[in-house]
Amino acid sequence: MDDVTTRIETALETALRTATGAGDCPPQLAAAVRHAVFPGGGRVRPRLCLAVAAACGDDAPAISTAAAVSLELLHCASLVHDDLPCFDNAATRRGQPSVHYAFGERLAVLVGDGLITLAFEQLAHHTQSHPERLVALTKIVGRSVGISHGIVAGQAWECEPRVELTDYHRQKTAALFAAATEAGAAAAGQPSQLWYTLGEQLGLAYQVADDIRDVASTPEAIGKPIGQDVAHQRPSATTDLGLDGAMARLKTLVETASASIPHCPGADRLRQLIQHEMRRLLPAELAQWVITE
Amino acid sequence: MDDVTTRIETALETALRTATGAGDCPPQLAAAVRHAVFPGGGRVRPRLCLAVAAACGDDAPAISTAAAVSLELLHCASLVHDDLPCFDNAATRRGQPSVHYAFGERLAVLVGDGLITLAFEQLAHHTQSHPERLVALTKIVGRSVGISHGIVAGQAWECEPRVELTDYHRQKTAALFAAATEAGAAAAGQPSQLWYTLGEQLGLAYQVADDIRDVASTPEAIGKPIGQDVAHQRPSATTDLGLDGAMARLKTLVETASASIPHCPGADRLRQLIQHEMRRLLPAELAQWVITE
Repeated sequence: MDDVTTRIETALETALRTATGAGDCPPQLAAAVRHAVFPGGGRVRPRLCLAVAAACGDDAPAISTAAAVSLELLHCASLVHDDLPCFDNAATRRGQPSVHYAFGERLAVLVGDGLITLAFEQLAHHTQSHPERLVALTKIVGRSVGISHGIVAGQAWECEPRVELTDYHRQKTAALFAAATEAGAAAAGQPSQLWYTLGEQLGLAYQVADDIRDVASTPEAIGKPIGQDVAHQRPSATTDLGLDGAMARLKTLVETASASIPHCPGADRLRQLIQHEMRRLLPAELAQWVITE
Repeated sequence: MDDVTTRIETALETALRTATGAGDCPPQLAAAVRHAVFPGGGRVRPRLCLAVAAACGDDAPAISTAAAVSLELLHCASLVHDDLPCFDNAATRRGQPSVHYAFGERLAVLVGDGLITLAFEQLAHHTQSHPERLVALTKIVGRSVGISHGIVAGQAWECEPRVELTDYHRQKTAALFAAATEAGAAAAGQPSQLWYTLGEQLGLAYQVADDIRDVASTPEAIGKPIGQDVAHQRPSATTDLGLDGAMARLKTLVETASASIPHCPGADRLRQLIQHEMRRLLPAELAQWVITE
């Protein structure tokens, strides 16, 4: 594992051990929470958060780590609830049984609720020395999952008769990416707003890539069923724009993201990191086409 | 409406209007969130929080109001998820259709998630002037809903083969009451720990009263179906102790609560308020027996 991976996995491990290890936590809930968080996927959001924190000086690494953990826990929570029978009814996730499939629907609902709560607790447990950063981080993280602009809103658009594709993706996926870049800056005590566009564009790019994978990959390669967007009649970039159109959109988004990085000592290093991460996320033939160095 | 009621209802109204009014919030989600919060029940937790804040001087009313709102939103979230088909499958709540019954299961899951998030956001939006209180409040509130000691843990005990009644009630109900008294003190900048027992004992009392109502009241009087504990084979004080035993336990809990109030300028007034609230919550014949002035 590289240093960043170790930092993220160790912090997630500690957060879960503290939350479930007290003896008051029902054993099945503890197991289900663990199942939702380990093994992880790409840990894309916490990596992005820490990359921005590093570019901003990362003067309080305990806070940026907590922010990274918080984002990943919220992401895991959204996956668990997304997989529920009333939504995607997905039997597998990250190559293993989904939480409700392995532990039942009740525990899956509770795991999501518990992880959302734990995400906010994590922020508070590591900001005692800089409480004003907790105010900023809670607002950033809250907005990215919440009712008005966040994951919950994005998901709820699926229940509406009409939805604008970009609005939907902006809330369902890009909001948490934007929170990742903003939280990285806020955790390092820097103004966060300049970092919004980077996260938002990367998030939209990631969602388009996900839509492309849903039609152009295999269940083995992505660890979950394919063809879900069509099966659930969900808005999708490939349905809307065709495969070529979706690829062109992806390229534009990644370029806009890269160009938006604010002037700071770590800007060049961050730009390289982002290209590296995007390459890691995309199937090889896509990466070559989208990322131009 | 008395002043406290007005303060709570106005603040809840503002919180929801801000969260759902931006135009980015899907219309059905906005309606479902509203349905979950209005009309309210007894608003017992926010009233308790504000009563303790007042006893502690309430030097920053915007913060104590935010804490009160946060607790009520979390309570509403837990009710919405509790009513889901995989849990109680309740068709009514507070005398109206439950959220999943009126808006479908998907929106009910999302309403719960959104309200949990909004609860933490509310705290951050009103603590800019005293950020160190946000640290304390987030910890208090988080613990009361979370995986290890909170509502989520309490609810998850229902999925275990064996459960200790008092542990179960302590997490499922008393945790949020203890958070209400602790948060009231913390919102006023006072140490919170001394206030834990008051909330915990009142919460246990409230749960025992709820168990008693479930066997000894009518659906019209309590706005939800009765006989649910037996129907769902849930742990209950009346099942465990019989009706007389449960009544005796309730009396002890209320007395312990009252005796635990820390020495402070507002202690006497608070003691009166609590007796008033308990009387409001219990059927008349129970109140007379339990509350001795």
